[in-house]
Amino acid sequence: MSIPVDHPRYHSLCVRERLAQAMQDGIVAPEGLCAHGRGEAFDYLLGEVTIPSAKKAEQCAAALFHVAKHPVISVNGNTAVLGAPEIARLQKATGAMVEVGLFHRTKERIRMITDLLTAAGVVVARGEAEHLLPLSHDRAFCLRNGIYEADLVLVPLEDGDRAQALIELGKKVITIDLNPLSRTSRSATLPIIDEVTRALPEIASYAASMTVDEAASILTAMPEQSWFLQAALDTISQRLSHVLD
Amino acid sequence: MSIPVDHPRYHSLCVRERLAQAMQDGIVAPEGLCAHGRGEAFDYLLGEVTIPSAKKAEQCAAALFHVAKHPVISVNGNTAVLGAPEIARLQKATGAMVEVGLFHRTKERIRMITDLLTAAGVVVARGEAEHLLPLSHDRAFCLRNGIYEADLVLVPLEDGDRAQALIELGKKVITIDLNPLSRTSRSATLPIIDEVTRALPEIASYAASMTVDEAASILTAMPEQSWFLQAALDTISQRLSHVLD
Repeated sequence: MSIPVDHPRYHSLCVRERLAQAMQDGIVAPEGLCAHGRGEAFDYLLGEVTIPSAKKAEQCAAALFHVAKHPVISVNGNTAVLGAPEIARLQKATGAMVEVGLFHRTKERIRMITDLLTAAGVVVARGEAEHLLPLSHDRAFCLRNGIYEADLVLVPLEDGDRAQALIELGKKVITIDLNPLSRTSRSATLPIIDEVTRALPEIASYAASMTVDEAASILTAMPEQSWFLQAALDTISQRLSHVLD
Repeated sequence: MSIPVDHPRYHSLCVRERLAQAMQDGIVAPEGLCAHGRGEAFDYLLGEVTIPSAKKAEQCAAALFHVAKHPVISVNGNTAVLGAPEIARLQKATGAMVEVGLFHRTKERIRMITDLLTAAGVVVARGEAEHLLPLSHDRAFCLRNGIYEADLVLVPLEDGDRAQALIELGKKVITIDLNPLSRTSRSATLPIIDEVTRALPEIASYAASMTVDEAASILTAMPEQSWFLQAALDTISQRLSHVLD
């Protein structure tokens, strides 16, 4: 398949093609493509830029990483395909453990995603996953010394169920999700309403230069969760009211 | 894969699974799953119901079919998988020709979609497609005695490029697309902002009982294209402003 370069949505179609290829390779589940499409729609509504409130959330995320004792980044197929190098950079900046977590979990997919991340410079946690989260499906599985014992979990492109389960286990949860109305965003300690490959380097960049004092003062002034959601909704509403003018 | 029945988005995940299966069978292109996901997001924003302005558009669509001399329904993989029986019903109600039109066009996929539609009772136009539309890719292909000579084309889930090309050839174009901001919706003569399996039976139902006089008076009072877009945008804005209350 070749996408015509003159197609107005060339970039978007190329990213889709990358995910489609990853799916044919077995790295991404077919349903992951649908989930990506949902994200595309919200990114379109946000203007395909990092809005100021998201930038603020990314700074707060860096501060949360800074004070966490055992932070873990949970990576699924879509995140690995779209942002493996960005995950590597964020891991270097924060020292966080990276664990592969899949909705459609098979040993083969875990292995392929681990290989993809490793090739991009990520150190991936390994071990036997156990059924440790209060969920009825594959997403219940995680590493005991990884997500289960983490005090902070970053879950880019996560399922709402799992984000809620992590919160109920008393963890701080940072989500990256373009939908400000999703259960994922609404259950997060800190919802980042941004595209994953824009958000990850931004968090890494803040984390790399942040001092302990800066982190403490950022966290003292951190807005409520609903502020981040409302700011994204307001952006969308404003864009909708002007788009046909 | 089995989706847990207690999952809050069970229905949506089942439809995804159906499309995923169709993709594995080669009926739907992988990129079709992304496109479906975009639609899901907009349907979510619209409340997953047919809004009053869409119902009005569906009535106008029935009237346009009524007065058309050579109406054609263009069907792609997603539409066939999601709504083959609804296409059959609409064809019976309007007498329109049904032509398979694909972004990612292969003879094999044309054949599979034709078989799927035929099994659901659709009479599918056959023949040698020619490069007749002013487009740089597969979508340029259509039947000379089908879409090329049509005065009215219904394009559910269509690519924006193709909708525009049809308009430029002087045809009336009815689109069904959940995104009121898409190039597809914005280039249509009549944009129906609704989910395809809700929209098709509604048009069929109006068409089945409409008289010539009724069709004429509906078309006299048919709103401008922008009215339908604005009504959908207003619905989304209003929903967004209340959702966190």
